[in-house]
Amino acid sequence: MALQYIFELLGTYFFAISGALALENKEQDMFGAAFMGFITAIGGGSLRDILLGSYPLVWIGDINFFYAILAGILTSFVAWNFVRKLKRTFLLFDTVGIGFFTILGVEKALRMGVRPEIAAIMGMFTAVMGGVIRDTLSNEVPVLFRKEIYATACLSGAIVYLLLYYFGLEREWNLLISSSVIITIRLLAVRYKLSLPTLR
Amino acid sequence: MALQYIFELLGTYFFAISGALALENKEQDMFGAAFMGFITAIGGGSLRDILLGSYPLVWIGDINFFYAILAGILTSFVAWNFVRKLKRTFLLFDTVGIGFFTILGVEKALRMGVRPEIAAIMGMFTAVMGGVIRDTLSNEVPVLFRKEIYATACLSGAIVYLLLYYFGLEREWNLLISSSVIITIRLLAVRYKLSLPTLR
Amino acid sequence: MALQYIFELLGTYFFAISGALALENKEQDMFGAAFMGFITAIGGGSLRDILLGSYPLVWIGDINFFYAILAGILTSFVAWNFVRKLKRTFLLFDTVGIGFFTILGVEKALRMGVRPEIAAIMGMFTAVMGGVIRDTLSNEVPVLFRKEIYATACLSGAIVYLLLYYFGLEREWNLLISSSVIITIRLLAVRYKLSLPTLR
Repeated sequence: MALQYIFELLGTYFFAISGALALENKEQDMFGAAFMGFITAIGGGSLRDILLGSYPLVWIGDINFFYAILAGILTSFVAWNFVRKLKRTFLLFDTVGIGFFTILGVEKALRMGVRPEIAAIMGMFTAVMGGVIRDTLSNEVPVLFRKEIYATACLSGAIVYLLLYYFGLEREWNLLISSSVIITIRLLAVRYKLSLPTLR
Repeated sequence: MALQYIFELLGTYFFAISGALALENKEQDMFGAAFMGFITAIGGGSLRDILLGSYPLVWIGDINFFYAILAGILTSFVAWNFVRKLKRTFLLFDTVGIGFFTILGVEKALRMGVRPEIAAIMGMFTAVMGGVIRDTLSNEVPVLFRKEIYATACLSGAIVYLLLYYFGLEREWNLLISSSVIITIRLLAVRYKLSLPTLR
Repeated sequence: MALQYIFELLGTYFFAISGALALENKEQDMFGAAFMGFITAIGGGSLRDILLGSYPLVWIGDINFFYAILAGILTSFVAWNFVRKLKRTFLLFDTVGIGFFTILGVEKALRMGVRPEIAAIMGMFTAVMGGVIRDTLSNEVPVLFRKEIYATACLSGAIVYLLLYYFGLEREWNLLISSSVIITIRLLAVRYKLSLPTLR
């Protein structure tokens, strides 16, 4: 569990960086960047907890998340040019992040006693809604509606987790396998520019 | 009450279809359409319940709403071209939907013990906020700010319901009459292109 | 406390006016303007209360806030041209409003038992999030990401309040001083067109 906690803080840290860098092509000041970093990092988990009625929200109950976010924002300020060049590294971290947060979101929803169908939605929301809020505030159509397979990967991994969960697989193995499903789908989609069909 | 429940599920089903079709002029994949359908269907009721602190949210507590949404999304996938041609039928269903959901929202708010002024707002939010969230995520100014009388019809019907409620009218009759007020105002507004004056 | 209550209602009144005037350059009808006024006035406080799990929300528990909002909307309808010419007066009211609401938000968060870092964020959210929601719904990049120091002023005042609070300063003095910090920073920023550096 100590390892999981460190991963959660790290994931939060990377989400904050991705949010702080989001406005790069728009007029913005440093505060705007920090604000975006903050919203992106707390958005998905907060929405999940509010929908489930689970209080206190994670980042309000445990101040370490606040400092992980602050560290992410400072990193993006100090290493702005450096971080932006690391697009590939960044993609990797983001992908590991959504893989991990999806499954944690599913587990939290199950602990709150909801049905598995709802838990799958909550897992996906946890991973992607911070980015949706970030994009909406930046006045963009959220990437999740127009890019390579992203939220679909999260939803697939959530469903895999739930199947293995009901087959009785041990939690640690399940976390590992279903996160890997998300990460693999996402990286393949980026590598081969896969996307879902449109409706026309 | 059985009839009311069927109507609620049907309304949710139609909201999901209207959301899934919302992005038609934008780049999007099937997942984006499904995501929009989901958000549109749960948006208004979820916002009402979160503002009132009423847990669990309807679609989390009762899995049938989840399947009604799923059915709506699948309908829009399978019958995409067909559904889009039925603009008139669709308008009718949407209008019946907002008429019905407005009054259910008012009733739920009253049961939670809020004042009638607040209940009227909650009724309107229930009917229109799913669409507002849908439009905001699609990067459009919400239709409700620029189109024919829509939310105004909901608010008017909510006020009629509350007046008749305090006059002691039986619930079934009241539901019927005040929903009809909403539906009539809305259809007349569309038919005769009525809109409220602007501020200039 | 009676004086504070009057200020809260007045602040809500001015927020409603600022929201109702927000769409001035867009197509809109009177209802759209009223809706925006309402959302702007309740947005920041509602988000704070929902994040903290503090129910009932202020405007739901106390109907006077509803009527303060209604009065603000009616004022913007009746005195539309007049109010728009008073840009300077308006700036002053808005600035006093954010100064005051920030500190009230900090105090409420502290009473809910959260850490001071979180309370500072909550104070800022209370003051600025109504405007962020207003701008997002109007399909604009929120002013707070592109204009003179605004949210930064709120955050600074919140931090001053918390420092003086832990030094043991009496509450009335603290409220006065830290609100003044916000108001002063904001007015200086507007007067001398100060802004924070961008990241490039």
